[in-house]
Amino acid sequence: MYLEKIDAPQDLRGLTTEQLRALADEIREALLRKLSAHGGHIGPNLGMVEATIALHRVFDSPKDKIIYDVSHQSYVHKMLTGRREAFLDPADYDEVSGYTNPQESEHDHFTIGHTSTSVSLACGLAKARDLRGGSENVIAVIGDGSLSGGEAYEGLSNAGEAGTNLIVVVNDNEMSIAENHGGLYANLRELRESDGKAPCNFFRALGLDYLYVKEGNDIEALTAAFRQVKDTPRPVVVHIRTLKGKGYAPAERQKERFHWGMPFDLATGEPKAAGGGEDYCDLTGRFLLERMRTQPELVAITSGTPAVMGFTPERRREAGRQLVDVGIAEEHAVALASGIAKAGGRPVYGVYSTFIQRCYDQLSQDLCINGNPAVIAVFMGTAAGMNDATHLGFFDIPLLANIPNLVYLAPTCAEEYFAMLDWAIRQREHPVAVRVPGAAVVHRPGPFDTEYGELNRYRVERRGREVAILALGSFHALGEETADRLKTEAGIDATLVNPRYITGLDEELLEELLRDHRAVVTLEDGSLDGGFGEKIARRYGPTPMRVLNYGLRKEFADRYDLGELLRANRLTGEQIAEDVLRIVR
Amino acid sequence: MYLEKIDAPQDLRGLTTEQLRALADEIREALLRKLSAHGGHIGPNLGMVEATIALHRVFDSPKDKIIYDVSHQSYVHKMLTGRREAFLDPADYDEVSGYTNPQESEHDHFTIGHTSTSVSLACGLAKARDLRGGSENVIAVIGDGSLSGGEAYEGLSNAGEAGTNLIVVVNDNEMSIAENHGGLYANLRELRESDGKAPCNFFRALGLDYLYVKEGNDIEALTAAFRQVKDTPRPVVVHIRTLKGKGYAPAERQKERFHWGMPFDLATGEPKAAGGGEDYCDLTGRFLLERMRTQPELVAITSGTPAVMGFTPERRREAGRQLVDVGIAEEHAVALASGIAKAGGRPVYGVYSTFIQRCYDQLSQDLCINGNPAVIAVFMGTAAGMNDATHLGFFDIPLLANIPNLVYLAPTCAEEYFAMLDWAIRQREHPVAVRVPGAAVVHRPGPFDTEYGELNRYRVERRGREVAILALGSFHALGEETADRLKTEAGIDATLVNPRYITGLDEELLEELLRDHRAVVTLEDGSLDGGFGEKIARRYGPTPMRVLNYGLRKEFADRYDLGELLRANRLTGEQIAEDVLRIVR
Repeated sequence: MYLEKIDAPQDLRGLTTEQLRALADEIREALLRKLSAHGGHIGPNLGMVEATIALHRVFDSPKDKIIYDVSHQSYVHKMLTGRREAFLDPADYDEVSGYTNPQESEHDHFTIGHTSTSVSLACGLAKARDLRGGSENVIAVIGDGSLSGGEAYEGLSNAGEAGTNLIVVVNDNEMSIAENHGGLYANLRELRESDGKAPCNFFRALGLDYLYVKEGNDIEALTAAFRQVKDTPRPVVVHIRTLKGKGYAPAERQKERFHWGMPFDLATGEPKAAGGGEDYCDLTGRFLLERMRTQPELVAITSGTPAVMGFTPERRREAGRQLVDVGIAEEHAVALASGIAKAGGRPVYGVYSTFIQRCYDQLSQDLCINGNPAVIAVFMGTAAGMNDATHLGFFDIPLLANIPNLVYLAPTCAEEYFAMLDWAIRQREHPVAVRVPGAAVVHRPGPFDTEYGELNRYRVERRGREVAILALGSFHALGEETADRLKTEAGIDATLVNPRYITGLDEELLEELLRDHRAVVTLEDGSLDGGFGEKIARRYGPTPMRVLNYGLRKEFADRYDLGELLRANRLTGEQIAEDVLRIVR
Repeated sequence: MYLEKIDAPQDLRGLTTEQLRALADEIREALLRKLSAHGGHIGPNLGMVEATIALHRVFDSPKDKIIYDVSHQSYVHKMLTGRREAFLDPADYDEVSGYTNPQESEHDHFTIGHTSTSVSLACGLAKARDLRGGSENVIAVIGDGSLSGGEAYEGLSNAGEAGTNLIVVVNDNEMSIAENHGGLYANLRELRESDGKAPCNFFRALGLDYLYVKEGNDIEALTAAFRQVKDTPRPVVVHIRTLKGKGYAPAERQKERFHWGMPFDLATGEPKAAGGGEDYCDLTGRFLLERMRTQPELVAITSGTPAVMGFTPERRREAGRQLVDVGIAEEHAVALASGIAKAGGRPVYGVYSTFIQRCYDQLSQDLCINGNPAVIAVFMGTAAGMNDATHLGFFDIPLLANIPNLVYLAPTCAEEYFAMLDWAIRQREHPVAVRVPGAAVVHRPGPFDTEYGELNRYRVERRGREVAILALGSFHALGEETADRLKTEAGIDATLVNPRYITGLDEELLEELLRDHRAVVTLEDGSLDGGFGEKIARRYGPTPMRVLNYGLRKEFADRYDLGELLRANRLTGEQIAEDVLRIVR
């Protein structure tokens, strides 16, 4: 086995082409063994096996610096840079993160998980090199899908102007997570079809040199191309055509399904766990598609992740022009939604909490200053979602809740979520965001309000005294549990409130609580700093009311255990009740 | 006078070319008369006189919808759409805003003030039209400078894919606010020099049709081009070459100075008010340039506004490759800074508070998760700065202060600002942002600390009892005034604290205050929601300490009077002292 002898990229040097091909086979096999057992990014890594071998064969990492966009395709890089055991030995599978990580290796230069950033980061490394008078190569590896984001364009245009060594490897597998969207992709096709010779060339238009490699899964062709551009004094794009999922038939066929996946049966490609019943994505897609049939002005918008809103390929076909996938272009998505709403359409933009971060200014300027009634569904705004430092769902409340004019709603369950979504789509007064309640679908008995236009009216679920618990959205159940504990442990009949509105205070209720309550507890499934609870603390600051805010401390938690994280933040009913009793008893 | 007869765009229809040319002269004269007396955007409007006349001659506004990027070039549009008196009658000069505004006219579709948004917003109008089956034209007018922002690229690429009527007028005056930066601009030059015929064409690469108009200040040439694309079923770029500052010699010569300006002498172009002494921009530029001479790894970064950091054309020449202007590409600026810092360089990115909003995700992901020691100087984070709803300096604290790993510092005066900036550049541990203290330069007697590496140590300026005032950054003087009033009015020796660190709590001090203080007052020159004071309120929530938070209520205040705004938010020493006394007496 060759892979077992690769401790560092230098160990590739002595291998013949035949031996490198055998190595590629071993890598693919190891990837499939791990990913089928463990889950992870499948297609992106299978497609990049040869290119990664060739990069490390030609360039001298870590002196030469390779930056991977999103870095979900960096598994092969990890295997070649001293971390192969994390792919060979099941006991070590969790020893590496799913993304590049400087704490793991000197061959990783950044922790990266969001898209379209590699060229800009690489520009920084190149600039520092140029000031220092260094001569190393700086290489950004970016997929065609990531080119749809504005930051990638800004990076390319600035690389074009900088004019010094920067090698941008465009890994063109003709796919984003789903299919690509954007006028750019017609140009990429033109370039592929002309063997790179089409005179109208997006990359050259931005001032970069350009080289096309038709056989992007051929080690020799890639080696020749990389040798040609190594030590170039100019910025250059090496456009390589690869096959996403290469070498595993199910992944080659079903590229979207095998972009990322949970464990699967290697023989058939079928998922090992049965589809786990209801999820908010599927329910949302069904809800919207149903509405579209009678509301021709309803448009679902996605930024490269239609599955987040439950729009499977089949539903996409059915939705037709009532679904817009803008590529990985969150900024455009929000501005587009604002424009559609302005002109009388009813746009619903569905996006993960971690990606709504990518369009703060568009939310503020394009949408909220204008007050257009667009709707945003924010998925996975919860500690129970993705747990990589780069994909946390902790920050959407601080981000959204402090923007004027926005109405940000926190339903507590599926029934309330759809009641709010329904209202948000019907109303014409406000930009409205709805925080999809947590990861797993929760049902609660109704009825729930159908109108939310009288803003900032919290709902009292249980009327008590002494202690009031304001349990927001997905933490409502935690509020119920805490109230129950206070009753059984101390005989306290706590008031339980479903605040519903993250963006404003129910002044009347909060004033009223001052009469017969001594403490208010706030619970939110997100970062405390800049969040909902702090607004309540500010409101009661000048009063005798004691306020206890619960949520997550400000940090980039990484690959955490959910239970541990919650306990560390005193987010169990037991801990909260204990704290409350210390205050009021 | 023709202008006096134009109540609506339809009134242009009866005019001959000669009459329209005379109208253009009248408009230019009115613009110069108003702007020389009142200030505003000069060059962008002078350059767009003919194009705006031609647009309104050919298209049928407001049915056809014209969206202006940044909308600082929309003065002529306002003059032709019923708002001419605001340009003719000095008594009415303030009747219109400096940007488009749907509350002023049905011919304005959005409130716009940030750059690169027009194409995306126009895509939304076009999408709603297509769903409705409408047939109106949608026109985005965007300057070449605005094309450097990622949102513009995302918009163009999506327009290219949408494939229906969308007319993008690219107003190419070969200038951004300062000179253009980015590889794209070589392509625009190639297109100009080839009369639009160069085969490598950025816009065509994104899937748009393309038309070039060499004489972009000629009404007839423009009319012909617009007639050609009117009702096109396809997205098309009309690339027009205009002269920024056209028709006013000083503005044609000094394009950067006359982009925007305060009142000036019409005969000479000289500013009416003498340069008002010190300003933070100039001081910062001087400081950085001085450092650059001995620190070759120091790099100043600007996103299209070098003057914000005091980099005049002369200083730019002197800084050479130690200044990088990335164009209006804030996202790239932050990622670039992170990369430079990672590789050992010392980047300082200078940016207005209102524009730091454009790169939240880059601050979070590219910079702070990676913990690279880049430095950001945030200018005009104050209510005393720009007062258009689109350019408020209220939101940088909520935006920045809630990102993990960032150290955000609030100096109280020039001396402390430069001490902090000096430390920020020297240290290698943290991403650091420094909030430039207010609009006008303030001096305070020192000494000030030179080291800030021991995080979150607030500085007690006066030690007292009963009441503690935490007066952040540019509101420090307000804190002093309040403390003085409490002394004279009630004999209270208040403790006065300079918190310095916006991003963390001085637990030791805050705990200590509990001993002999009954109330804590926080003051911040920014939005309360998500800000500094709320963190203090949260900290003291479970304790008997009363907390009063002062800052700005969450709103998009527009063209406010500063004194009125402060009073409405109870931000005078008198009001604060009154509130405090109500609590503690």
